[in-house]
Amino acid sequence: MKPYIEMTNDELNAELQNLRAQYKKVQAKGMRLDMSRGKPSQEQLDLSMEMMNVLDSSSDLTCEDGTDCRNYGQLTGIIEARELLGDMMENNPKDIIIYGNSSLNVMFDTISRCWTHGVMGYTPWCKLPEVKFLCPVPGYDRHFKITEFFGINMIPVPMTPTGPDMDIVEKLVAEDDAIKGIWCVPKYSNPQGISYSDETVRRFARLKPAAPDFRIFWDNAYGMHHLYDDHQDYLIEILAECKRAGNPDLVYKFASTSKITFPGSGIAALATSPNNMEDFITYLKHQTIGHDKVNQLRHVRFFKDIHGIVEHMRKHADIIRPKFEAVENILEEDLGGLQVGTWTKPLGGYFIMFDSLPGCAKDIVARAKKAGVVITPAGATWPYGKDPNDSNIRIAPTFPALEELESALRVFTLCVRISSIKKILADREA
Amino acid sequence: MKPYIEMTNDELNAELQNLRAQYKKVQAKGMRLDMSRGKPSQEQLDLSMEMMNVLDSSSDLTCEDGTDCRNYGQLTGIIEARELLGDMMENNPKDIIIYGNSSLNVMFDTISRCWTHGVMGYTPWCKLPEVKFLCPVPGYDRHFKITEFFGINMIPVPMTPTGPDMDIVEKLVAEDDAIKGIWCVPKYSNPQGISYSDETVRRFARLKPAAPDFRIFWDNAYGMHHLYDDHQDYLIEILAECKRAGNPDLVYKFASTSKITFPGSGIAALATSPNNMEDFITYLKHQTIGHDKVNQLRHVRFFKDIHGIVEHMRKHADIIRPKFEAVENILEEDLGGLQVGTWTKPLGGYFIMFDSLPGCAKDIVARAKKAGVVITPAGATWPYGKDPNDSNIRIAPTFPALEELESALRVFTLCVRISSIKKILADREA
Repeated sequence: MKPYIEMTNDELNAELQNLRAQYKKVQAKGMRLDMSRGKPSQEQLDLSMEMMNVLDSSSDLTCEDGTDCRNYGQLTGIIEARELLGDMMENNPKDIIIYGNSSLNVMFDTISRCWTHGVMGYTPWCKLPEVKFLCPVPGYDRHFKITEFFGINMIPVPMTPTGPDMDIVEKLVAEDDAIKGIWCVPKYSNPQGISYSDETVRRFARLKPAAPDFRIFWDNAYGMHHLYDDHQDYLIEILAECKRAGNPDLVYKFASTSKITFPGSGIAALATSPNNMEDFITYLKHQTIGHDKVNQLRHVRFFKDIHGIVEHMRKHADIIRPKFEAVENILEEDLGGLQVGTWTKPLGGYFIMFDSLPGCAKDIVARAKKAGVVITPAGATWPYGKDPNDSNIRIAPTFPALEELESALRVFTLCVRISSIKKILADREA
Repeated sequence: MKPYIEMTNDELNAELQNLRAQYKKVQAKGMRLDMSRGKPSQEQLDLSMEMMNVLDSSSDLTCEDGTDCRNYGQLTGIIEARELLGDMMENNPKDIIIYGNSSLNVMFDTISRCWTHGVMGYTPWCKLPEVKFLCPVPGYDRHFKITEFFGINMIPVPMTPTGPDMDIVEKLVAEDDAIKGIWCVPKYSNPQGISYSDETVRRFARLKPAAPDFRIFWDNAYGMHHLYDDHQDYLIEILAECKRAGNPDLVYKFASTSKITFPGSGIAALATSPNNMEDFITYLKHQTIGHDKVNQLRHVRFFKDIHGIVEHMRKHADIIRPKFEAVENILEEDLGGLQVGTWTKPLGGYFIMFDSLPGCAKDIVARAKKAGVVITPAGATWPYGKDPNDSNIRIAPTFPALEELESALRVFTLCVRISSIKKILADREA
């Protein structure tokens, strides 16, 4: 089929009539499918059920250093968990704090700490007339919601295939000392699934922000989440690079086992410089007597070491790879050559990003919903939920079963085609 | 033996010489004993080891309402955990949020939320020229550390045998709208081990604070922690009383299973009014996708219902009751009639409070330390660590083995006697 834009109005109207008939049939099926959130499927969760067996009433819950995991103490986490997450994050266990069940929580608390107490002795952000954050777009909605909640002024920075546009990032942070941070998902990014290039990471490590309390919020949520054994993205380790660049305190790096074991019942971690670490601990020692060490021990005894995590992630990949490939195949089959959208083909992570013709995303999502298919709200990938092009849509393929996912995708492509034709016809009229 | 204060200087000096000889012998033993923190003993922790068996790889981790506990979701906790903690806290499950592993963390976050976002639409506390908190003294050091960390001006209010001096509390909160809260441990209080009387609770529920965003921080940490079956303190349920008094939004109530199962690996909960709940959820939904539901389910399946908790707490009581009684017996044996101090005889909780002669507490604690016995630092029970009388000492009997505890107590009473004589002699010289 030729591109819609090259069709005559008559051709488009004929196509539209045909598509509408299909849509009616789909609606009649009364489907209820959800592609909205990056959740693992039940099959993936089953991979970690053995973790429920590693501790029982006969287990010795004592750590290597003699700590009884069942009692208070060990504010920064048990040493064996710091070592395991250290290997996972490519950081020295000394530079790691193990937190509770969610890295999002750690990020929120970090913004909150900067707000109430400031960074390394600088003015608390709540005392400043304005605080700004750079937000690479499209990006992760929950990041943006945190900064929005604190009234932080979010400035969108365009993403490129190699990461945020670093010319813009460098210029903005050098000029404006109200800019205090930037949100980054550097590997298999949310929603694109792309990874920052070596040059991007090097330029991040060499930023010269006007604000001495500027920090990079480096959310390495998908560091272990490859889809392929032989074809993987590599990411330069940012803390080491910052150290080499003479900028050791520039980064807060976050990770968790949420999509490795059980979302909500995993363990989260922070890696950062000794100076930043001191800041975090000052806060932490007032906030809690310690996190859940029994769950830390459970994770360590389950995985044993980093090789255990790698093998485990291979099993995840075997489950979700067919889903990613199904999405890409259907998009290609149904939309290839129509010039009504572009999409990413990630090698890992949890998402595929789709860009429709400008002005179509909301309509597509609404149309899909009416046919029983829930997609992440259009706009969610932008600060304040406002996508100026109304074109960006995040597809989350992991949760539905393969067959359901395929059905949902067929509905999605149908909606894309209907919306696109209507948009082209409307543009021609205008 | 007659009271020290009635002895002549010669009698006191003779006694002092005798006590010093004993102290030297004790020092020579090179003991290392810790009575400083309210931690359960290993024997107590062993009571919950069966909890490690209730979930295994063959378990169905699905909740009553169909929620898969292994995945994201259920921000306010699983319904069966809200019901169990509801029974424990004497509140409607609807008024309860289940949090993570620590109620201290929930209290910290609550202060932080008030600081950054304010209470129910009122000005965030960080925007106010001054924020004050009432601190019943002696009280819990970690409460005071939180408010100190936020730069909140802490005003001590004397504790009486029936709770905080309510005449003072009523007067202060009515007069000064900078007073935004009060810390309370209403049952088996830390460090006294006393419980608020019916009248005290009723007066709390009927407070008329000048500040509309004043809240009572009601930390019911020891609600289930009785020492005796037949002789227990009763506490009026504060939320219900506030409702009856027409003050439904006045209280934030906190609890956890920290000293019921494993400290640091339990579950925490908040109970409050629907209006307050909305405030908490607005914050929470940005802060996290949800707490650890697998651990919530583990607790529910272990206890089954509130009767399970009651039976379990009986076993705790059987272990710690002899320790409390040993402390009381030794204090009576060694110090009874000397008029060198007073102490509480709680029916539950984790602490016994000792009050020395004014000006002796620091000296007693330092002296004990030199003989190998660690006691909570003198002053810790006061805001800013400053006890104006230098008399208050918190004794935590639960962690050491009974025999060790007895040895430690003997050292303690020896130090009390030495310090007291030195103080009396010095006062007479002055």
